[in-house]
Amino acid sequence: MRCEIIAVGTELLLGQTIDSNSAWIAEQLALAGLDAHFQTRVGDNMERMVSSIRLALERNEAVIMCGGLGPTQDDITRFALAEVMGSALRRDPALVARIGERFRSRGREMPGNNLLQADVPDGATPIAEMPGTAPGLICPVGDGVVYAVPGVPSEMKQMISGTVLRDLKLRAGVAAVIKSRTLRTWGYAESKLAELLTARIEALDATGNPTLAFLASGIEGIKVRITAKAASETEVGKLLSEEERRVRAILGDTVFGVDEQTMESVVINLLRQASLSLATAESLTGGLLGARITDIPGASDVFRGGLVAYANELKQQMLGVPPGPVVSETTAIHMAAGVRRLLNADVGLATTGVAGPSEQEGQAVGTVYVALAIGEQVEARRLQLGGNRKQIRQFAVIGILNMLRRRLLTIDDQPRAAP
Amino acid sequence: MRCEIIAVGTELLLGQTIDSNSAWIAEQLALAGLDAHFQTRVGDNMERMVSSIRLALERNEAVIMCGGLGPTQDDITRFALAEVMGSALRRDPALVARIGERFRSRGREMPGNNLLQADVPDGATPIAEMPGTAPGLICPVGDGVVYAVPGVPSEMKQMISGTVLRDLKLRAGVAAVIKSRTLRTWGYAESKLAELLTARIEALDATGNPTLAFLASGIEGIKVRITAKAASETEVGKLLSEEERRVRAILGDTVFGVDEQTMESVVINLLRQASLSLATAESLTGGLLGARITDIPGASDVFRGGLVAYANELKQQMLGVPPGPVVSETTAIHMAAGVRRLLNADVGLATTGVAGPSEQEGQAVGTVYVALAIGEQVEARRLQLGGNRKQIRQFAVIGILNMLRRRLLTIDDQPRAAP
Repeated sequence: MRCEIIAVGTELLLGQTIDSNSAWIAEQLALAGLDAHFQTRVGDNMERMVSSIRLALERNEAVIMCGGLGPTQDDITRFALAEVMGSALRRDPALVARIGERFRSRGREMPGNNLLQADVPDGATPIAEMPGTAPGLICPVGDGVVYAVPGVPSEMKQMISGTVLRDLKLRAGVAAVIKSRTLRTWGYAESKLAELLTARIEALDATGNPTLAFLASGIEGIKVRITAKAASETEVGKLLSEEERRVRAILGDTVFGVDEQTMESVVINLLRQASLSLATAESLTGGLLGARITDIPGASDVFRGGLVAYANELKQQMLGVPPGPVVSETTAIHMAAGVRRLLNADVGLATTGVAGPSEQEGQAVGTVYVALAIGEQVEARRLQLGGNRKQIRQFAVIGILNMLRRRLLTIDDQPRAAP
Repeated sequence: MRCEIIAVGTELLLGQTIDSNSAWIAEQLALAGLDAHFQTRVGDNMERMVSSIRLALERNEAVIMCGGLGPTQDDITRFALAEVMGSALRRDPALVARIGERFRSRGREMPGNNLLQADVPDGATPIAEMPGTAPGLICPVGDGVVYAVPGVPSEMKQMISGTVLRDLKLRAGVAAVIKSRTLRTWGYAESKLAELLTARIEALDATGNPTLAFLASGIEGIKVRITAKAASETEVGKLLSEEERRVRAILGDTVFGVDEQTMESVVINLLRQASLSLATAESLTGGLLGARITDIPGASDVFRGGLVAYANELKQQMLGVPPGPVVSETTAIHMAAGVRRLLNADVGLATTGVAGPSEQEGQAVGTVYVALAIGEQVEARRLQLGGNRKQIRQFAVIGILNMLRRRLLTIDDQPRAAP
């Protein structure tokens, strides 16, 4: 079963919007074992939309169209579909009622325009999910099918996950359940990960189930995705868990999380489990470490706060850093220990270094020191980071968080700050 | 002159990479006054690449292909082009020398694979710019033309800006110089901006030169883009400056910057001009305000540092906030005044509020107080912000920076912190 994605919207052709919808849909198709050989973007133009749909149906069995289902003059996907199907549009009373209800539930009156959204080509079926006012459509055309979903990402995702993928798999005769689980890693380069996993990947190649794939994700580390296929959810879950265990046995604690977990959410959970509170002292990162930690709801359970000591005299006055080079292990150590005491926390983290664009104190751009104080024990590490200013700062943040994570995994009995 | 963009790469079809290259190229085409009616993405597959190029040449006069020019087995754009041109590939000695030089200048030996990159279809011309090891190509096909550029964004951009756009405009007979300037605004909704500028836009419609367009950019505010066309760079510059003056007269100081300027870079410049130093006290934003300020090289000229007072007792102990509700004007005011004194700065900024997902102290998600202390003068403002946790935090940051920006525009003689 081959499926083409057509994204609709003149804003895409003008470069005002980046088409991330197509990438998301493409990923879902790949995970479901369906082929997608082409993606097309076309403007809000009747003739070009019709020719794009026809071409897509010639070279594929299925088409997913995304966008152009709104209530304005520009939104002509349903007209283009009626043209391709050779059908008339008919107002669907059930949809009129549902759209009206959407407005009533928000206490608003329905503008007349929105009635247009209830017009369905003869032979098409509305998609059951309808989180907004735009109904999705399933349109059979000869032996093929076109699914139309709105361009609003949350609405699109609900329809694809809820109806379109299931319908596609039924048509393709894919009875199997396909699921994936992503292990998130930090610390190895992609080439090193590949080397470590070569033997396992070769062993898996024999059966092709499950499979392993790497996805480099920049400052988010490298993801190892396990995809498995089986007759039931339970069996798929078992395959995934078995493979996860094998991969973790190979990669050890470079695996920091699974699926939606982030480095900061994992660290917050570990701190919470250990009943440890956290404080940060930032120079290089200027607040970014605190910002990433507090991006996680519930961070206040463990995070007391931080000092951004950007001016060097603040490092000395507030944190007890001795005079001398600020891009140094000594400075990082005193910052971590100092902020732990100053803000009365169990754990102190510190960053200092050269983010660029120019060198500092004769140290090259990318020279970074991070330090970690737990109770009276303090350790520091020098990192030599590549990339631009933004990347160096982000890598320093994830580097120190990872250092804390690995430290928290090794301790069970923890010295605590004085009450 | 119509131009289709073809992005090449199986990673695009698997949804592993979002195709931001096509959006960037599309924007450049639109700014140059060239039409782009279709965009296509195709995998690293000979047959499908060839059919995509042929189709694109049928419905357009020009095609820009992006990707597939690297040295690996997957990179087959040059083979597909040779096929479409009906040409043989010939190794270009000048390119061999240039590619070799790239490696020598980095002190590395050239792998044999990279020689493939010097293979050029007969009749094609290499693009002059070559920032990496992948040469771009200009390939005439009948009356049409295909430009091939690498998928690495920096290399692609240099070739498009340096050669492709100029060549396209020559072919299209566009003698005019087209340039645009973007005014960045904060404070008005798009509908309000549109209302204020309606009369001006209608007046411009008569000549169509210059033109105005709005681009909503979320947490970056709304951009007003002026595009002008004239016979020379000087005349275009004059048109843009005249129009900028008119738009600024209408929008006043909601215009915070031009083109690449950001709210934080503008604020840092204003502080530097006024010789004022800055400190921040963050609760809601957890370090994000400091992080955005220190993202700008040279922030250390004005930014002393900040206190992230996430735990409420730190607000009281370190900043002198009185006991009571923390999501309040009183708290914001004491935080701003407190951090200015604590870190010995001229200006103090503070944020407190409810980022969600749950309400706090009976206050709704999105309730935010920001405050600004300059010398002994302190002012606060309540903001009611929409969106999710990330958006509320980002809007609070830009909101307080904008408050400081407007304040700095009104002062010339400034009370200073005690030395």
